[in-house]
Amino acid sequence: MPVLKREEVKVPAGVSAEARETYLDNYLKATRGTGRLMLFACDQKIEHLNDDFYGEGIDPADALPDHLFQIGDQGVIGVLAGQRGLVAAYAADYPDINYLIKVNSKTHLVKKDQDDPYSPQLHSFEAILELINNGVNVVGIGYTIYIGSEYESQMMAEAGELIAQAHAAGLIVCLWVYPRGKAVADEKDAHLLAGAAGTALCLGADFVKVNPPNAKDGQTPAQLLHQASMASGRCGLVCAGGSTVDAQTFLTQLYQQIHVGGARGNATGRNIHQRSLAQAVRLTKAISAITLADAEVAEALAIFEGDADFTL
Amino acid sequence: MPVLKREEVKVPAGVSAEARETYLDNYLKATRGTGRLMLFACDQKIEHLNDDFYGEGIDPADALPDHLFQIGDQGVIGVLAGQRGLVAAYAADYPDINYLIKVNSKTHLVKKDQDDPYSPQLHSFEAILELINNGVNVVGIGYTIYIGSEYESQMMAEAGELIAQAHAAGLIVCLWVYPRGKAVADEKDAHLLAGAAGTALCLGADFVKVNPPNAKDGQTPAQLLHQASMASGRCGLVCAGGSTVDAQTFLTQLYQQIHVGGARGNATGRNIHQRSLAQAVRLTKAISAITLADAEVAEALAIFEGDADFTL
Amino acid sequence: MPVLKREEVKVPAGVSAEARETYLDNYLKATRGTGRLMLFACDQKIEHLNDDFYGEGIDPADALPDHLFQIGDQGVIGVLAGQRGLVAAYAADYPDINYLIKVNSKTHLVKKDQDDPYSPQLHSFEAILELINNGVNVVGIGYTIYIGSEYESQMMAEAGELIAQAHAAGLIVCLWVYPRGKAVADEKDAHLLAGAAGTALCLGADFVKVNPPNAKDGQTPAQLLHQASMASGRCGLVCAGGSTVDAQTFLTQLYQQIHVGGARGNATGRNIHQRSLAQAVRLTKAISAITLADAEVAEALAIFEGDADFTL
Amino acid sequence: MPVLKREEVKVPAGVSAEARETYLDNYLKATRGTGRLMLFACDQKIEHLNDDFYGEGIDPADALPDHLFQIGDQGVIGVLAGQRGLVAAYAADYPDINYLIKVNSKTHLVKKDQDDPYSPQLHSFEAILELINNGVNVVGIGYTIYIGSEYESQMMAEAGELIAQAHAAGLIVCLWVYPRGKAVADEKDAHLLAGAAGTALCLGADFVKVNPPNAKDGQTPAQLLHQASMASGRCGLVCAGGSTVDAQTFLTQLYQQIHVGGARGNATGRNIHQRSLAQAVRLTKAISAITLADAEVAEALAIFEGDADFTL
Amino acid sequence: MPVLKREEVKVPAGVSAEARETYLDNYLKATRGTGRLMLFACDQKIEHLNDDFYGEGIDPADALPDHLFQIGDQGVIGVLAGQRGLVAAYAADYPDINYLIKVNSKTHLVKKDQDDPYSPQLHSFEAILELINNGVNVVGIGYTIYIGSEYESQMMAEAGELIAQAHAAGLIVCLWVYPRGKAVADEKDAHLLAGAAGTALCLGADFVKVNPPNAKDGQTPAQLLHQASMASGRCGLVCAGGSTVDAQTFLTQLYQQIHVGGARGNATGRNIHQRSLAQAVRLTKAISAITLADAEVAEALAIFEGDADFTL
Repeated sequence: MPVLKREEVKVPAGVSAEARETYLDNYLKATRGTGRLMLFACDQKIEHLNDDFYGEGIDPADALPDHLFQIGDQGVIGVLAGQRGLVAAYAADYPDINYLIKVNSKTHLVKKDQDDPYSPQLHSFEAILELINNGVNVVGIGYTIYIGSEYESQMMAEAGELIAQAHAAGLIVCLWVYPRGKAVADEKDAHLLAGAAGTALCLGADFVKVNPPNAKDGQTPAQLLHQASMASGRCGLVCAGGSTVDAQTFLTQLYQQIHVGGARGNATGRNIHQRSLAQAVRLTKAISAITLADAEVAEALAIFEGDADFTL
Repeated sequence: MPVLKREEVKVPAGVSAEARETYLDNYLKATRGTGRLMLFACDQKIEHLNDDFYGEGIDPADALPDHLFQIGDQGVIGVLAGQRGLVAAYAADYPDINYLIKVNSKTHLVKKDQDDPYSPQLHSFEAILELINNGVNVVGIGYTIYIGSEYESQMMAEAGELIAQAHAAGLIVCLWVYPRGKAVADEKDAHLLAGAAGTALCLGADFVKVNPPNAKDGQTPAQLLHQASMASGRCGLVCAGGSTVDAQTFLTQLYQQIHVGGARGNATGRNIHQRSLAQAVRLTKAISAITLADAEVAEALAIFEGDADFTL
Repeated sequence: MPVLKREEVKVPAGVSAEARETYLDNYLKATRGTGRLMLFACDQKIEHLNDDFYGEGIDPADALPDHLFQIGDQGVIGVLAGQRGLVAAYAADYPDINYLIKVNSKTHLVKKDQDDPYSPQLHSFEAILELINNGVNVVGIGYTIYIGSEYESQMMAEAGELIAQAHAAGLIVCLWVYPRGKAVADEKDAHLLAGAAGTALCLGADFVKVNPPNAKDGQTPAQLLHQASMASGRCGLVCAGGSTVDAQTFLTQLYQQIHVGGARGNATGRNIHQRSLAQAVRLTKAISAITLADAEVAEALAIFEGDADFTL
Repeated sequence: MPVLKREEVKVPAGVSAEARETYLDNYLKATRGTGRLMLFACDQKIEHLNDDFYGEGIDPADALPDHLFQIGDQGVIGVLAGQRGLVAAYAADYPDINYLIKVNSKTHLVKKDQDDPYSPQLHSFEAILELINNGVNVVGIGYTIYIGSEYESQMMAEAGELIAQAHAAGLIVCLWVYPRGKAVADEKDAHLLAGAAGTALCLGADFVKVNPPNAKDGQTPAQLLHQASMASGRCGLVCAGGSTVDAQTFLTQLYQQIHVGGARGNATGRNIHQRSLAQAVRLTKAISAITLADAEVAEALAIFEGDADFTL
Repeated sequence: MPVLKREEVKVPAGVSAEARETYLDNYLKATRGTGRLMLFACDQKIEHLNDDFYGEGIDPADALPDHLFQIGDQGVIGVLAGQRGLVAAYAADYPDINYLIKVNSKTHLVKKDQDDPYSPQLHSFEAILELINNGVNVVGIGYTIYIGSEYESQMMAEAGELIAQAHAAGLIVCLWVYPRGKAVADEKDAHLLAGAAGTALCLGADFVKVNPPNAKDGQTPAQLLHQASMASGRCGLVCAGGSTVDAQTFLTQLYQQIHVGGARGNATGRNIHQRSLAQAVRLTKAISAITLADAEVAEALAIFEGDADFTL
C-alpha cells in the first residue's frame, strides 16, 4: 500500500506559509495518506441534468440526491466532488465526508455544433471559504476546462485564479481538462490528452482528470495514457474508467491505468451511484482497494461481490 | 396541516453562524411555519410588460400596481415576489407582507428565434441589504435561469453567487428554472424539468419553481412531476398551476401537484391578480388552504367562493 | 396649483435613513414643491450630435452650449438634464439650476438596421457624488433604457444598480424608457409604452419619460397615454410634447397629457433650446405654468407670447 | 499674445477642492499660461506601428525613440502626448517636459472593413498617479474615441470615467474624437466634426482634438471648423494641421484654424518628428509662436527657417 | 564582456521609490549584470501542448517536466520563463533559478482561420506577489500580445496594467509581441516586427521578444532586425533563433542578431529542452557565452561540444 509521508508532500509554492499545515492536512485527507486520489464525482445533476439519475438501468435509489451522500458516507472514497450548493444542502448531515467543491458547471443542452462549450465559475472563492468557516469539511476545489473551445480563454483564466486562491488558503485543486469544441477532431487522442494533462500542471493543479485515450496502433489505452502521466509531472493524473461496463472490466481498466498508465487515482461517478446503495458502497471499496492500497483486480472484485471488505 | 418545527429546518451550510437565526426566521415566515411555499408572483410588469395587467378578461383594478400589494396585504400568502424597485416603492405602506426580491428580469420583446434568453441581475446584493436595513420585511430573493440558453452560463454564475450571498446573510432563495432557447425542443418535458430542478439544488436554492410538465404516455402532469420533486431533494419544488383556467381546475391541479407530484408549494401570479381585489384575495386563501393546510379541493373552492374563510 | 407636502412624498424604501431628508429636499426641489416634473432635456449634444443645435430653423444662439444654461437660469424649470461633463463645465457659473445628471448616452450614428441600440453608463456613481461634494446642485440622475434591444439586459442592469445607489444617497431618478430595436415593430404603441412605464416602476425610478403614443382606434394620444400612467403607479409619468410644432399645439398636447393622460410632467429639449434666449425662456415659463401650476392653455400661450409672466 | 490669468481659468466642477490648485497649475503649464494648447503627439508607435518613424522621406533620427524626447526638450511645446510606458522609460532624463499620458491606443492592422475600431484603455488611472508620485511631470491625460464605431460605447464609458478620475486628481484631459466605422460615410464632414467636439464637452474634456474638415460649398476648412469650435464651448478645440505638407502651407492652415476656425490650439505629430532634430525643434517653435503668441505666418516661417527664434 | 553598472540601469518611472532597489536587483539578476537577457522559454506545455515534449527527434527526458528545471539549474541562463503553476510546483526544489512568470497562455487548438488569437491573463498580479512572499525567486513577468488580432485590445489592456503593477513592485517585464490574425499577411515582415517592438516600448516593457524577420531584398534577417532594435529604444529586443537547426547555424544566427541586428538577448525554448540534459545544459552555456559574454561563434560551439566550459 502506497504511503505518502507528510514531509514527502510536494507543497506548491502558491501555498502561503500560514496555510501550509492546512494544505498538508487536506492533501493527506483527500488522498487518504497515499498520494493517490479516489474521487467520487457527484456533479452530474447539472452536467447531465437528470439523465444519469433516472431511467432504465439506473437503480431507483439514485433518483434522490441523498443517495450520493449515503454512498460517500458509508463507502470508502477520497473526496466527494459536488457543486457548492449541493454540498451545502447535505454536509451538516454527512460531516465526515471529504468534500471537493466543483466550482464550475454547465448543462449539456447546447450541443457542440451550436456553440463551443463554456462552463462558468458559479460563485466567488469566498463562498467556499464561507462553507469552511461554517464547519464543512472542504478539502479542495475542482474546475473543468475545455481546451480547444472558443471559450478556452475564459476557463483558463478562471481556473488559474481559483488555483492561486485555493493554494493560498491551503486547499487542493483538481482540474478536469477535456479537449472539446469545433477545433477538436479526436477528444480521446493520447497525445492531445497528454497536452491536457500538461496544461493542468502549468496552471498549478494538484490533480488532473482526463478521459482515457482510445486504443491505437496496437497500444492499449493504459499504455497510451503513460504519455499523459509523464506530461503532468507533479500534478497527479486521475482517470475515468470509461463508460459503464461490468465491474471486472471496469476494475481491470482502473488497475491498468495506475500500474501501466502511471495514473495516480481515478474519478468515478455514474458507475458508482447508478447502483443500489449496498452495491455502490461495495464498488467504492473495490475501487479504493486498487487505488489506495494497490490491491489486485481479483481482490477488488471479491470486495465488490461482498466476499471481502475493505477499510482504511 | 403540515408543521415544520424550527429545529427541523435543514439550514444550508452556506448560512453563516451569525445569520442562522435570521435564516430560520425567514424560512419559517416564508413558509408560514409549514415548510411549504405559497409564492405570489408579481414580477410580470417587466417580464410581460403590460400584457398581464390590462386588456380583455383582466379586471380593471389590475391596471394599477397598488392592486398587487393590496392582494398581498389582505390575502394569505407566503411571499410576494417582485423586483427591488417595485417593492421599494410600496413596502412602507404594506409593511407586513413577506417580500421576496426578484433579482433579475427581462422583457419578452426579443423572441427566441432572434436571440436566446438572458435575464440580467438588476442590482448588487448590497442593494437588497439596504432595503432590509431600511426596514423592509425582505425574507428572500429570487432569480430566473434559462437552462439551454446560449446565455445559461451568465445566469448560472449570477445565481450561484447570489445564493451564496443570500445564505450568508440569512435570506432564503427561490430559483425559477426554465429550459428555453434554440437548443430546447420541449420546454415541458418531465425529464428535462427534473434536470432543471436538480440544477437548482446543486446551485443551493431553497426552493425551485418549474413549469408543470405536459401529460405523456398516459401519465398526468402531476404524476410526471414526481421525478422533478425527487431530483430537487432538499430544495423544495414549487410549481405553477398552468395557464388561466377556472378555479376548480386550477385548485385541483395544485392539490395534485402537492399530493401526487411531491411539490412543496406553488407560484401563482396572473391567475390571482387579474381578478378583482375581493376575488383575488379569496383565491390566495384557497391556494394557501391547500398549500399550507392540506385542505381538500372542495374546501378550497368553498373558500374561493366566499362560503368559508381561511386564516393562519 | 398642485402642492405636495413634504410628509406626503412617498419615499422609496431604497432611500437610506441618513439620506431621507436629502431625498425629500431633492424631490421637492426637482418638482418645485408640486410632485410634477418639468425636465429641460439638454443631453442631445451626444445623442443627436450637432443636429439639434445648428442648421436651418435653429436660432444661432443654440450653437453655443452656454445657451442651454442661460435658458435654465433665466427660465422656470424643474431640472436641467445633461451629462456629467457638460454640467461640470458650466455649473459654477449657474449655481442655482437644479441639475439632473444624465448618466448614459450614445450617438445616433449606428442605425438600428446595423445594430440594436446600447447607451453606456459613462462613469461611476461616485463621479456624481464628487460633483455634489464640490458644491454642484445635483438633485437626481437620469438613464435611458431601450427595451426590446438586444442590449436591453446591459441597460436594465446598469439602471437597476444606479437607482439603488442614487436612492441610498438621496437623489431622485428619472428613466427614459424607449422600446427600440429589431424586435420592436411600433415604438409608439400605447400598450407597449405602458409596459415601458411599468418597467421603470419595477426598477425603482421616481419618474419615467416615455414618448407619446400614436393616435389609434379613434383615441387621442393623451387618452391612450392613460394606460401608461396607470401602469407606472408611484413612478410619475413624464412625456415629451412630440416633434417641434407651433407653441399652441405643443402646449395643448402638454395640457392634455397631464389632464387627460395622467402625466405628472414633461420632458422637453429642442422645442425649447432651438429658439432665441428670450423666446426659450418664455416657453419654459409657459410649460411650467401648465405643468407646475395647472394653468390653462390660453394662459400658457399668453406667457409664451410675453403678455403675461410666470414665476414660482 | 494671449494671456490667461489663473483666476480666469474655468475649473470644471469635477475637480475636487483639494486638487484645485494642482489643476490650475497643470492647466497653465499645459497651455503655457495662454489657455491655448500646443500638443506634440507622440503616440504613433502603437497607432501606426513603425510607419511614421522609418522609411522614405523620414529623417533617420526618427528611428530612435529618444528623438521624440529630444524634440520635446529642446523645442517649445505645451505637452508631449505619449503612452504611459513610453513616458515612463524616458521621463527621468527629460524631467522638464509637460507630459500628457495617452491612456488608450490600438494598432492600425485590423482595417475598418474587417471590424470597427476600438482602442482600449491600457491601464488603470492609478498607474498614472503612480508616475506622478514617482516624480514625473504629468499634467494631463488623453483618450481617443471613435464615435460611430460599433464599440463607441466602450470608449465613451472608459473616457467618461477617466475624465472624472483625472479631474478629481487635478489633471487636465484632452480627448481625440474621430467619427469612424462602417456607419460613418464621411469622417471629415464639418457638421459631424462639430458633433464630435460637442461630445467631448459633454464628457467633460478640457480639450478636444478633431481632424480638420474637408472644404465644401466654397467654404475653407478653417471656416467650416467654426461650427465645431462653437459646439465644444468651454472645451477647447484643437486641430491637426492635416497631412504632411510644406511648412508654409502647414503654418498657414494652423493660423487660420485659430483665427478663422476658433481653434484653441493644435496637435501635431509626424509633421514634427519626421524631421531632423534641429528642423523639428524649429518647427515646434514656429507652431508655438502662432498658437501661443499669436504670431503671423511670416514670423513663424522665419522661426522655422532659423532666421528668428522663439522662446516663452 | 558587457557589464552594466547598477547606476547605469535606466529605471522606468513606473517603479515606485520603495521598489527601486528590488527592481535593480531583479534587472541585474535577470541579465546577469550585463543588460542582456538569456531567456529560457518553458511555457510551451500550454502553448503547444505536448507537441514540443514528446515525439520523434525529441529526447525522452523531455517528456518529464523536471527536465526543464534541471536544465535551468545546471545550465547558465538569465531567466526561466514558465506559467505560475508550473513554477510553483517545482521552485522549492530549484530555488536558485531566476523565474519569469509567463502570465498568459493559450493552446494552439483553435486555428487562425477559425478565430483570431487571444491569450488570456491566467491570474491576478497578486498571485505572483504571493509566490514571492512564499520565497520563490521571481524576478519578472512575461505576457504575449498578438497585434493585428481582433482581440488585440484585450491583450494590450491586460499587458498595460500588468506592466504598471510589475514595475510598481520592482519586477521586470518581457513582452512577447507577435503580429498574428486574419489581418496580418506576413508575420515576419521586418517593418511590422519593428512596429511590434515599438509597441512593447510604449507599453513600458523592459524587454520584447519578437520573431526574427524573413530575409528580403538581399538583406539578412539580422540586418533587417536592426529596424526593430532601433524602434524598441530602451526596451531591449530579444529574438528567437528561429526553428530548430544545427547548433552552429543556431549560434551564428544568435551572434548576428546581437552584433548585426542590435538584439540585447535571446529567447530559446525547444532548441534547448528537446535535447538530453547534458547537451541542453551545454547549449545554455554556449548561448549565454554569446549573449552575456560576447563570445565568438567558434568559442560558443566549443562550449556546446564540451570542449570548453562557461560559467559566470
